[in-house]
Amino acid sequence: MQYGFFDDKNKEYVITNPATPFPWINYLGNEDFFGLISNTAGGYAFYKDAKFRRLNRYRYNNVPMDNGGRYFYINDGGTIWSPGWKPVKTELDKYECRHGLSYTKIRGEKNGIAAEITFFIPLGNWAEIQKMKLTNLSKQTKTFKLFSFTEWCLWNAEDDQNNLQRNLSTGEVEIDGATLYHKTEYKERRNHFAFYHLNDTIDGFDTDRESFMGLYNEFSNPQVVTEGKSRNSEAHGWSPIASHYKEITLKPGEEKDLIFILGYVENEQDDKWESYGIINKSKAKSLIAKFDTVDKVDQALAELDTYWTNLLSIINIEHEDDRLNRMVNIWNQYQCMVTFNMSRSASFFEVGIGRGMGFRDSNQDLIGFVHQIPERARERIIDIASTQFPDGGCYHQYQPLTKRGNNAIGGGFNDDPMWLILGVVSYIKESGDFSILDEMVPFDNDMSLAKSLFDHLTISFDHVINNLGPNGLPLIGRADWNDCLNLNCFSNDPNESFQTTENKTDGSKAESVMIAGLFVMYGTDYAELCRVLGKTAEANRALKEVDKMKQVVRTKGWDGEWYLRAYDYFGKKVGSNENDEGKIFIESQGWCAMAEIGMEEGMVKKSLDAVKKHLDTPYGIVLNNPAFTKYVIEYGEISTYPKGYKENAGIFCHNNPWIMIAETKLGRGNEAWDYYSKICPSYLQDIQELHKVEPYVYCQMIAGKDAYKPGEGKNSWLSGTAAWNFYAVVQYILGINPDYDGLEINPCIPNEWKGYKVKRKFRGANLYIDIQNPNKVSKGVKSLTVNGKQMKGNKIPVLPPGDYQIEVMMG
Amino acid sequence: MQYGFFDDKNKEYVITNPATPFPWINYLGNEDFFGLISNTAGGYAFYKDAKFRRLNRYRYNNVPMDNGGRYFYINDGGTIWSPGWKPVKTELDKYECRHGLSYTKIRGEKNGIAAEITFFIPLGNWAEIQKMKLTNLSKQTKTFKLFSFTEWCLWNAEDDQNNLQRNLSTGEVEIDGATLYHKTEYKERRNHFAFYHLNDTIDGFDTDRESFMGLYNEFSNPQVVTEGKSRNSEAHGWSPIASHYKEITLKPGEEKDLIFILGYVENEQDDKWESYGIINKSKAKSLIAKFDTVDKVDQALAELDTYWTNLLSIINIEHEDDRLNRMVNIWNQYQCMVTFNMSRSASFFEVGIGRGMGFRDSNQDLIGFVHQIPERARERIIDIASTQFPDGGCYHQYQPLTKRGNNAIGGGFNDDPMWLILGVVSYIKESGDFSILDEMVPFDNDMSLAKSLFDHLTISFDHVINNLGPNGLPLIGRADWNDCLNLNCFSNDPNESFQTTENKTDGSKAESVMIAGLFVMYGTDYAELCRVLGKTAEANRALKEVDKMKQVVRTKGWDGEWYLRAYDYFGKKVGSNENDEGKIFIESQGWCAMAEIGMEEGMVKKSLDAVKKHLDTPYGIVLNNPAFTKYVIEYGEISTYPKGYKENAGIFCHNNPWIMIAETKLGRGNEAWDYYSKICPSYLQDIQELHKVEPYVYCQMIAGKDAYKPGEGKNSWLSGTAAWNFYAVVQYILGINPDYDGLEINPCIPNEWKGYKVKRKFRGANLYIDIQNPNKVSKGVKSLTVNGKQMKGNKIPVLPPGDYQIEVMMG
Repeated sequence: MQYGFFDDKNKEYVITNPATPFPWINYLGNEDFFGLISNTAGGYAFYKDAKFRRLNRYRYNNVPMDNGGRYFYINDGGTIWSPGWKPVKTELDKYECRHGLSYTKIRGEKNGIAAEITFFIPLGNWAEIQKMKLTNLSKQTKTFKLFSFTEWCLWNAEDDQNNLQRNLSTGEVEIDGATLYHKTEYKERRNHFAFYHLNDTIDGFDTDRESFMGLYNEFSNPQVVTEGKSRNSEAHGWSPIASHYKEITLKPGEEKDLIFILGYVENEQDDKWESYGIINKSKAKSLIAKFDTVDKVDQALAELDTYWTNLLSIINIEHEDDRLNRMVNIWNQYQCMVTFNMSRSASFFEVGIGRGMGFRDSNQDLIGFVHQIPERARERIIDIASTQFPDGGCYHQYQPLTKRGNNAIGGGFNDDPMWLILGVVSYIKESGDFSILDEMVPFDNDMSLAKSLFDHLTISFDHVINNLGPNGLPLIGRADWNDCLNLNCFSNDPNESFQTTENKTDGSKAESVMIAGLFVMYGTDYAELCRVLGKTAEANRALKEVDKMKQVVRTKGWDGEWYLRAYDYFGKKVGSNENDEGKIFIESQGWCAMAEIGMEEGMVKKSLDAVKKHLDTPYGIVLNNPAFTKYVIEYGEISTYPKGYKENAGIFCHNNPWIMIAETKLGRGNEAWDYYSKICPSYLQDIQELHKVEPYVYCQMIAGKDAYKPGEGKNSWLSGTAAWNFYAVVQYILGINPDYDGLEINPCIPNEWKGYKVKRKFRGANLYIDIQNPNKVSKGVKSLTVNGKQMKGNKIPVLPPGDYQIEVMMG
Repeated sequence: MQYGFFDDKNKEYVITNPATPFPWINYLGNEDFFGLISNTAGGYAFYKDAKFRRLNRYRYNNVPMDNGGRYFYINDGGTIWSPGWKPVKTELDKYECRHGLSYTKIRGEKNGIAAEITFFIPLGNWAEIQKMKLTNLSKQTKTFKLFSFTEWCLWNAEDDQNNLQRNLSTGEVEIDGATLYHKTEYKERRNHFAFYHLNDTIDGFDTDRESFMGLYNEFSNPQVVTEGKSRNSEAHGWSPIASHYKEITLKPGEEKDLIFILGYVENEQDDKWESYGIINKSKAKSLIAKFDTVDKVDQALAELDTYWTNLLSIINIEHEDDRLNRMVNIWNQYQCMVTFNMSRSASFFEVGIGRGMGFRDSNQDLIGFVHQIPERARERIIDIASTQFPDGGCYHQYQPLTKRGNNAIGGGFNDDPMWLILGVVSYIKESGDFSILDEMVPFDNDMSLAKSLFDHLTISFDHVINNLGPNGLPLIGRADWNDCLNLNCFSNDPNESFQTTENKTDGSKAESVMIAGLFVMYGTDYAELCRVLGKTAEANRALKEVDKMKQVVRTKGWDGEWYLRAYDYFGKKVGSNENDEGKIFIESQGWCAMAEIGMEEGMVKKSLDAVKKHLDTPYGIVLNNPAFTKYVIEYGEISTYPKGYKENAGIFCHNNPWIMIAETKLGRGNEAWDYYSKICPSYLQDIQELHKVEPYVYCQMIAGKDAYKPGEGKNSWLSGTAAWNFYAVVQYILGINPDYDGLEINPCIPNEWKGYKVKRKFRGANLYIDIQNPNKVSKGVKSLTVNGKQMKGNKIPVLPPGDYQIEVMMG
């Protein structure tokens, strides 16, 4: 069954059946103010932090799924319907939802009335605009009643759902014509309020949920809508809402535009009040005035379009397969930017009140957006590095508002430091900005301990070699990249965290082969950076350590047919053919193969052949095999998941690109591409019903071959998958690879490909790259010309601003 | 509008209109296993802890209100209805809900079919029984389809609502005939599972919510029920549920009994499995076998009835006003027991994942149930005292499962220690068990620091006099009884707690007149206890301190017409006529008047007259007046509430009995009674719609005179109000007052009362007390006879086991 299609021209995904297998959502907003919106207009907006400053109440995992949002109700002579189908769910004559870049357009038609609403957040503004166009498509004059609806969250989303004995008494509103203000706690410690405005006269309003809805009515049948008349209720405690009511008459063919604004305002402490008890609305009124006509709103929409056109103009490909073009040019880049904005905080699987920003997550996310917004990547790198400890260890998470390390979680995840090298190297290779290395960056946010960012990298490198285990492999600590492989937590208490309850560190022999691979990979990068900087002695020292580690992996990290995963607390092998379950893991294959450890001895090829044999499935590569069917206390959370799900032999999409990249190291373009297309959303259109989640973005996990329903996706949008797949396909498959001194072109593609074109803005130059593959090879660049001039090797040097034609001939 | 009535004979409240102004709930269970159930069968069950071991998923403050629970659906030829009205909400031909003592009976009739379900938890068992009787009331044979439904919570209720990225992959079930098992995380760290069983064959089942419900359907129209056929779904992740499906044919007049069991089982670690991956069900099967026939279930119901008959037989009155009888004999005692079981954890306003047990709450709750279960009161006293610090301060809360003090909240609430004296003295006066004083009780749960419980009392007493402020009044610390009067927290950050963010302690002058009154009250009790124990020197020392405090209150705690409330951080008066808002507070009037401070000088009378003048309303006594309309940063949370709500001039019912008791000290029985009847639920039957919450139990707060809707109740069930009102009416109005050496009879009643009878079990003797008031006095006992023998004074001495007739003549 199909639910929608891509409209590449408009950069939209068009949903034509509202009853998608799961709510298919989009994100609004790009700076401080954000919104999540489903294909039926469910979701919520928030200012900066989805936990502490949430505007709309939203109930996750509810019955029905996706309940609450910005809803519109039309009562047309007793027929009640919603333009987005939900919440009323009256069958529509026509329904369409267009998820575009930072906007969503929902159109419903019923009995000759069309209602189309465009939702977006104008750049630089703290407001969600809902531009509605009503059209009478019929031949009769139509008079109908329109109701808007949103329920306010009392700001702190966690408290809002738990502290009812207080919250049900605190709600406060103010009503000013067609602007309905939510001002709970403004009297005291808050200097912010929200409002819901309509740019027209209204025939009524409601601000009290029970008055509007009725205590026992569903979202689908509010009493006020059924009765066809607002109650003009004023909320005092309980649950404040905002609902406008307007009766509308349209002649045949007549249109009417309405603009709803969901806004957020902060006032200075000494400027909070207009008069006694009356909030100062001047900023709200200014905000409203900026969007009070369709022209102004359309202008803001045009600015948003320009914003995205610019962002997407840096990397753009042209391939005969539109499925590849739309992912690389639009959706994957879009998802990378959303992941930059949201980290892992708010999606339809992340409830927005949980985790901070991850140290390793943030570094990895960076490789997906650094080409678009290098200046913000720079800022983020400094933020991340500031939460490092003086010994090179890192807070595993930090809080975005305070930018401080999260004490509740602490450190001890021994892969964390190495990711900083990836982040910094990627930034410099894209931007050429070596000056970041001289930035003085604090440890643990203490500026008195600051050292240069370069020193942070050295300390990161050394943290691994200062924490080696009995085999000479890196000690794993609480966990490496796989947060669920907890070799030092022996937990029998279901209320303990597997990550923070590290109860068996003393005497532990637990080592990670994956960190070893990571160290070889980014240790080499570190050495190369030193060399580029002229720090030859340090480069040599680093390379010596890297070589030592390679040797350790060859001897202690190899199981015969693949790389071991780890040694456990007792020194026993993890991810070995000796084990009954979990014989082979993807992570160490990915990292040791990417790092080319034992390439000469054939280890890389053996390892990737083993991945193909044991881990590959029609829906992607599973994390491990066989799945765990019992709880292995010395392995931790990984074995708690039902088989085939999440880290227990699920297809954890984040790590699939590691194998793709590793295949390119072997030159196996067909294999790399096969893995790419298996999990790439645009290639999954035919299995939308099975895949369940959005068919335009990656999800964190697809159920593996051992699962009940292999191929079913979960946890869409906020995942390192976005960055890694973009990185893998662009840099390693398409082979467009930034380096310190230029842009290397090194494709590794299916040998049947004839070629493709790439537009790339790089260090101020516009490169128009035409890659041709007449000899049907997978890898190898025979010649590269810049404006007709033959280059030595396959690198485009750093060029002065201007347009350049690049011809690349593979062979 | 009326929604129900009291059925005193059956000790039930009968609800006849399901659309109550708020869900009206009841509690099931008395020991380890509990349930909350609304009048439409909404709610959930849990084992011991509503946060960590919740069986059913329940969504608070949802739309519609009260969504989720144990639901039954009947599809009778396409007409779909639920016996409890919700969730389907088809209009019923007849509906009745009977909330009884630890059971609820819901009956619905539609189109000739009657379905009656009795919900209860058998004593000593971890199971909720749902006994269903189906009757064909029509003259035709009826064939219809019955579906049960409950949704499983994945055990930890907080995690269940927040950690979706994990939880949506972990759900696991097992299906064994008509027993549907929920075994999420049993494979690993849990040794417990739940099940939902039917004692009959079934025609189908579902265990996956989406299969049963449809992704976008409401609870009111599951797709399986509409289709009339189960899908026999097996849940793997997402949201596991349990639903039975059975087709039933009944001849005219025929009845059918079905027994559903919602059970909970714990297995030993080495006995978890029956075979590989199959849970050991032997305990579940034993549990099922105990309730597999109607006879067995009815036997368990009879045992429950006996249990309550015994509990309620200790205090029983007979008055010409049934409204008084039913509160004293049934509902208030019932609420006190529920409060004992739940503390403040789980109601329809407390979400069950928040607070621990309060130190002061628990001591106060105790005065409501000590006569019923003195042995459990004894245990609780030891638990509470064990969380005291060696200096007499106390953890403000402790966790019921671990019985340890809650570090997140800590101590510093300077009233806390005095409540321990109230608890211990009440226990000894009821039980005569002085041995509790010799128990060795730890500090901060550290047994090496243990001292006798008597020493804990001494240290509690001394904690006050060791923490006096500049006026000689007790320093308030973080707060006294009023958690929202935070004189040392100057908070501008909305994410700070007013209670734990104590940012202005140094140099603080903040003192509490309320603690002074509390100290005089229970300091006197402490001195009396010392005297009874023969510790005369300590008694004298204590009395001297008490006298000193009385003098301080007379001079520094008196405002001219009433007692001051406090001195703030700067040493300025709180609750003074000098203030613009908050001129007078109830707490200090209550405590200083109860303690009779300045009685001779007329202060008590003046204070209570001021209460009448400034704080009394038709719905009870407000906390303060005038209400705060602005945020007073030096007062804290109190001024954050909208005026008239909660601690800001709401009728905080908990403290109303303090004024009732104080009035009895003056002998003003009419006034005491007036206050009692204003907030006593059974006197509010005529304003059910306004009062909103249950008309059979007290609520924490009723909106005050400054509120938008005065008289509207909130936060019902779990409140110190239950214990204090029971204590006030029985001990001070009805005047049945346990003392160390007997039962004092000292009524203070409306002078129009002719008299009343009291049955009281006291220290093993059955006392049949007949109190007569021929002279229409409010107070004063002229004579008291025991079995015809005149006693000196108004005290019934401790008597040997046996029955005694007591005649009391007022005058």
